[in-house]
Amino acid sequence: MNRKLRMGMVGGGRGAFIGQVHRMAANLDGKIELVAGAFSSDPEKSRLSGEDFFLDPDRVYGSYEEMAKAEAAREDGIDFVSIVVQNHLHFAVAKTFLEAGINVICDKPLTVDLEQAKELKKIVDESGLVFALTHNYTGYPMVKEARRMVKDGELGRLLKIVAEYPQGYAVGDVEGERSGAISNWRADPKIAGKSNCMGDIGTHAHNLTKYITGLEVEELAAELTAFIPGRELDDDGNCLVRFTDGVKGIIYASQISNGDENDLTIRIYGTKASIEWHQEDPNELIVKYANAPRQTYRRGNDYLGEAAQANTRTPFAHPEGFIEAFANVYLAAAEAIVDQIDGNPAPDCGYDFPTVDDGVAGVAFIQACVDSSSNNAAWTKLDL
Amino acid sequence: MNRKLRMGMVGGGRGAFIGQVHRMAANLDGKIELVAGAFSSDPEKSRLSGEDFFLDPDRVYGSYEEMAKAEAAREDGIDFVSIVVQNHLHFAVAKTFLEAGINVICDKPLTVDLEQAKELKKIVDESGLVFALTHNYTGYPMVKEARRMVKDGELGRLLKIVAEYPQGYAVGDVEGERSGAISNWRADPKIAGKSNCMGDIGTHAHNLTKYITGLEVEELAAELTAFIPGRELDDDGNCLVRFTDGVKGIIYASQISNGDENDLTIRIYGTKASIEWHQEDPNELIVKYANAPRQTYRRGNDYLGEAAQANTRTPFAHPEGFIEAFANVYLAAAEAIVDQIDGNPAPDCGYDFPTVDDGVAGVAFIQACVDSSSNNAAWTKLDL
Amino acid sequence: MNRKLRMGMVGGGRGAFIGQVHRMAANLDGKIELVAGAFSSDPEKSRLSGEDFFLDPDRVYGSYEEMAKAEAAREDGIDFVSIVVQNHLHFAVAKTFLEAGINVICDKPLTVDLEQAKELKKIVDESGLVFALTHNYTGYPMVKEARRMVKDGELGRLLKIVAEYPQGYAVGDVEGERSGAISNWRADPKIAGKSNCMGDIGTHAHNLTKYITGLEVEELAAELTAFIPGRELDDDGNCLVRFTDGVKGIIYASQISNGDENDLTIRIYGTKASIEWHQEDPNELIVKYANAPRQTYRRGNDYLGEAAQANTRTPFAHPEGFIEAFANVYLAAAEAIVDQIDGNPAPDCGYDFPTVDDGVAGVAFIQACVDSSSNNAAWTKLDL
Amino acid sequence: MNRKLRMGMVGGGRGAFIGQVHRMAANLDGKIELVAGAFSSDPEKSRLSGEDFFLDPDRVYGSYEEMAKAEAAREDGIDFVSIVVQNHLHFAVAKTFLEAGINVICDKPLTVDLEQAKELKKIVDESGLVFALTHNYTGYPMVKEARRMVKDGELGRLLKIVAEYPQGYAVGDVEGERSGAISNWRADPKIAGKSNCMGDIGTHAHNLTKYITGLEVEELAAELTAFIPGRELDDDGNCLVRFTDGVKGIIYASQISNGDENDLTIRIYGTKASIEWHQEDPNELIVKYANAPRQTYRRGNDYLGEAAQANTRTPFAHPEGFIEAFANVYLAAAEAIVDQIDGNPAPDCGYDFPTVDDGVAGVAFIQACVDSSSNNAAWTKLDL
Repeated sequence: MNRKLRMGMVGGGRGAFIGQVHRMAANLDGKIELVAGAFSSDPEKSRLSGEDFFLDPDRVYGSYEEMAKAEAAREDGIDFVSIVVQNHLHFAVAKTFLEAGINVICDKPLTVDLEQAKELKKIVDESGLVFALTHNYTGYPMVKEARRMVKDGELGRLLKIVAEYPQGYAVGDVEGERSGAISNWRADPKIAGKSNCMGDIGTHAHNLTKYITGLEVEELAAELTAFIPGRELDDDGNCLVRFTDGVKGIIYASQISNGDENDLTIRIYGTKASIEWHQEDPNELIVKYANAPRQTYRRGNDYLGEAAQANTRTPFAHPEGFIEAFANVYLAAAEAIVDQIDGNPAPDCGYDFPTVDDGVAGVAFIQACVDSSSNNAAWTKLDL
Repeated sequence: MNRKLRMGMVGGGRGAFIGQVHRMAANLDGKIELVAGAFSSDPEKSRLSGEDFFLDPDRVYGSYEEMAKAEAAREDGIDFVSIVVQNHLHFAVAKTFLEAGINVICDKPLTVDLEQAKELKKIVDESGLVFALTHNYTGYPMVKEARRMVKDGELGRLLKIVAEYPQGYAVGDVEGERSGAISNWRADPKIAGKSNCMGDIGTHAHNLTKYITGLEVEELAAELTAFIPGRELDDDGNCLVRFTDGVKGIIYASQISNGDENDLTIRIYGTKASIEWHQEDPNELIVKYANAPRQTYRRGNDYLGEAAQANTRTPFAHPEGFIEAFANVYLAAAEAIVDQIDGNPAPDCGYDFPTVDDGVAGVAFIQACVDSSSNNAAWTKLDL
Repeated sequence: MNRKLRMGMVGGGRGAFIGQVHRMAANLDGKIELVAGAFSSDPEKSRLSGEDFFLDPDRVYGSYEEMAKAEAAREDGIDFVSIVVQNHLHFAVAKTFLEAGINVICDKPLTVDLEQAKELKKIVDESGLVFALTHNYTGYPMVKEARRMVKDGELGRLLKIVAEYPQGYAVGDVEGERSGAISNWRADPKIAGKSNCMGDIGTHAHNLTKYITGLEVEELAAELTAFIPGRELDDDGNCLVRFTDGVKGIIYASQISNGDENDLTIRIYGTKASIEWHQEDPNELIVKYANAPRQTYRRGNDYLGEAAQANTRTPFAHPEGFIEAFANVYLAAAEAIVDQIDGNPAPDCGYDFPTVDDGVAGVAFIQACVDSSSNNAAWTKLDL
Repeated sequence: MNRKLRMGMVGGGRGAFIGQVHRMAANLDGKIELVAGAFSSDPEKSRLSGEDFFLDPDRVYGSYEEMAKAEAAREDGIDFVSIVVQNHLHFAVAKTFLEAGINVICDKPLTVDLEQAKELKKIVDESGLVFALTHNYTGYPMVKEARRMVKDGELGRLLKIVAEYPQGYAVGDVEGERSGAISNWRADPKIAGKSNCMGDIGTHAHNLTKYITGLEVEELAAELTAFIPGRELDDDGNCLVRFTDGVKGIIYASQISNGDENDLTIRIYGTKASIEWHQEDPNELIVKYANAPRQTYRRGNDYLGEAAQANTRTPFAHPEGFIEAFANVYLAAAEAIVDQIDGNPAPDCGYDFPTVDDGVAGVAFIQACVDSSSNNAAWTKLDL
């Protein structure tokens, strides 16, 4: 196309963290332009956010329904919408835009329950439109390199996976008079869904296992806990996991791991080699062997595979981070959106972004965690 | 005492790794002298080992029974014996020396089953002798500092513990014609007991949680696996754990984590702070807070607690390692042995080495892992 | 302003690394829009680059002189120009735009010799326009935190500085038939100026010492070397340095440090504490004390100073990198440009971006390195 | 030999750090026995130290002269003496024992001036006795692996060396009323010799460059500084260095690098690869390439060279440290001492411990640093 892609946004007004991240990811490469938005359910807040982003006031809407209708009708309407509302609204907003014929990039988790997830998948499949889910950690180049190594058999037969995602931000006020003070909509089951910790971040760890190895979780035994007094939803969860192909392992996530920041880590063990990746040190991939020196693969080098190289913007050791990884999801989705608009077929290799299927698997994972835990950690199969 | 302590050894002849470690630990500080041994059940091998160690040939024995009898009868007989035989012999050898009135330092695990463990505890308790178990990782100064921090309340109320012990040495030949070739007596249930991986190293991880926090494992849900075809015993095990005081967590151990070497790691999360210690980087203890910079406590500094300082031999950043930690267990046991010989009471603060009680808890942990796993990871209480 | 700033670019067409970085830095926050450019001295290449960036063909120019004239005449002309041409053209291009009344953001080094540098400073000072130099490493939040700590006296009196910048990219073909094959315009004195390695990266290390500590280099003893046969300019340089206030230290840079990537590191030692920062791990600042645990300050936390917090886009441990740091220089310059356009006075605290004065100091540093080295490392004062 | 080697010690009584280290190094492997000593110039202190070490009171002496005479006369006299007195006494004590026909292991630096050093070398050479100097950092297995890699050409042609040794222990009281309070005999030129910092630790860094690469320092330009008011000798020193074979680099040492502990680090750059070793993380050797993943060689693995494997006591990731490295120097010297006693020729490969020649080179290095610095960092050749 000889123009930038036109993006709209639902949610993500002033002060919203994830909305700002989506905008920076879209801005970074100069190929996408934010032109419209319904940034808040409060029309005045939406309007002010529109000013912050230098938008045409006519394209700043008071509701997402209005926006979908108006933009679908415009000659120069948006090419896709970014949905960054709270979890419980993902389904309705996505459905509305898809039914208006507009491509979607949606924040995770896909929906707040499995029924919605499967219905949304149906809508997406029937629409012929692009639907990308921002499991952004798959956008890191060294995660793509990890995936390549598994696919190329460099690890041999896989044996074990340990994926963990400890955070500590929710522990500060466990006790004393401010007990429970750290709380947000993620702790509210009406908004967040059936799980807080596993839904918010456990699902990222789960998705990472799936993206890198191609394996599905078959069944799991989970213990979810709400350590903060007064919480309805879990702030910590530990799972024994049985993957397909006889692979076993552990997935855990936590928001009460005091002082841990955003320490998503995955270790994958195979008969020939093992790999280890830390989100807090994302430009490196550690490769371990039984009988040879440990290797550190570093982003930006020529010896890396195609995907790792294609998803990189700066030379080695000019560190890339969270926003660049997020932008890689946007770029991959943008490629599909351009093809959709231009009527081009998908490339043989497909596109490299998380889809509605990843979203359904994620919600099934959350559901299985909740079910297992309420059944004293009994083994529970994923309803895929 | 105005002389070195006299040590005997059972097992640990030429080529035996752990015997050499015990000897170096005993030698290091110049306070203990090896004077006698039954280094092998083969008398000729025992004799040759005695030559290696420059021993008086009269005190190199062909069997441990003979040694116990002869040394107990000598005026200058050994003050204690180090038992470094295979697991299934720990009980009989320890019993023999205790009954001969000789103090014991014994390698872990205590015994190969829980009945033996409890019986040995009884024998020890009735003997009035010193019995030390070499859960050597408790000997590291920074592990002692971790324990002090927990005891002094610097972590607040404990919430979660993650203890892991991945090794990869047993994975090399999972497949192909040499499949299963990597094997040793630890894989033989008649020698090693009911578990290989959890018995050999999982029990170290368990002991570390107990030593640092003082908490007991109440119940656990374990999945043990023998990934190497043809193995009778587990080479990998993952446990969900419920500790006393409502603390939860994970303990896992593995010998098929390709390329991992000896990566015993423990993370303990409390309401005020968290700590993290890696055996592969033992001179550091990482302390994390929700709202303050992360701190790294380093061995050899004046700001550390008494135990960390007392168990150190060199100034900061003159790295100490595995042998020094092992030697700390020997020094603490030696202190008790001297008191026993001299008829002194124990100091008010007690001694700082793993005891027969730790040994019983360890065997109960192994037993619970095996029972839970054979019951599809059902929650299983420790029989303490 | 109720619109995005309008940016033009000179240089930086297809395939140019630093041009792309400047564009991403400008794009990231959605406050700057690229609207014009003279991307190459070859008009056809310039035109094609303009297409890549979706520009109005009328504002893609065949020469920078034409661009300066045309944009200065437009009602909606550019608010500032980014200059990303080769070193030897910095002076002429900057002069042209400044004389056309257009604000400038310019890549480093300022110029290829000290006479030009001082003349450009005069032009800038007389113009009343904004001139920002992209010593981008000063844009990292933890570098700003380091600066704050020094300023607030947290290090005590400064004693020593060690700044190093080893790279290895130029060593690959030191020997054999492809000897000297790795070469680019930076090795050509007619384009790069009097130094390659010290001019290209040594000057970043120098600037970092100045930015963080406020100290000037008084004199230095330098040994520059061209290790690659056939090179006219240095690919390695080591300096003993005497700073103002009696501080001493080392600055070195290298392009033949095989396998080092972009390892800019600075260590600053004071009587109370010391700090250490590694560009390859930019989200951390290590703070060391003689008698207290080592601390790790991490980007994104509330305990950091104002500048570190203001120059951050994502929460802790959502890693930020090179582009975000670069974008911080752009944002700070943009703030000044808006004030210049709107006729507002500078804020009391001033702006936080490298200026023409930093540029003059950088060129004086390069000149002193070259002079000292050609005089057998004799002590040489900076001509400031 | 069918007995342990008999060791004597001069210096190193109660409370002396380095004496204790030498004893632990000698004890560790059970092949050496401390049997005699003159632990202090105060006979009563010497006697009490002898009690601490359980020695025969008849072999605890009030002076080293007395000890040399008495032990030389005994049938069961010492096989060698360890000299751990202050620097200014090394020469006299070593001379005395050599002239009594007793082998010597001596702490560094060899002597306090170059004349003494050369004279001592003459005495050693004429004696036919073993003389080992405890440049203990050469005892680390991964340092030996580094040496092997250089020797085997795995780095290609060497280009650059950066060796640094920052400590911070002497900075605590730079200012205020306790200014200069941190001081010890190393700051006294009558005891320490002409340099404090370069003599005490800079010489270790220098020796490490020589041991690993086989290169000599040809000339250097040094700036030594006494940052602590009132000090006569340097507490910091920085050198530009020209090695043989056209290799260049930097050697620096410091005792005022606040918060640094014992951070001896060496980086060696070649045309094919580079290596990096940190004394604070001694079990790893980092190997870097221009076009391949970075490798981490780890102690205890089969893929390492012969020397690295032979100088190891525990399996991989059972960390070894400072004492084990020190003990490797003792073991290598003991091998030579046994050959000397038994009248065996040296093995073809020679012995692997620092010699009197290393000692002379070290003193020449110190002298050149002092001379260069007092001549405003003029290039100064080593008088070898």
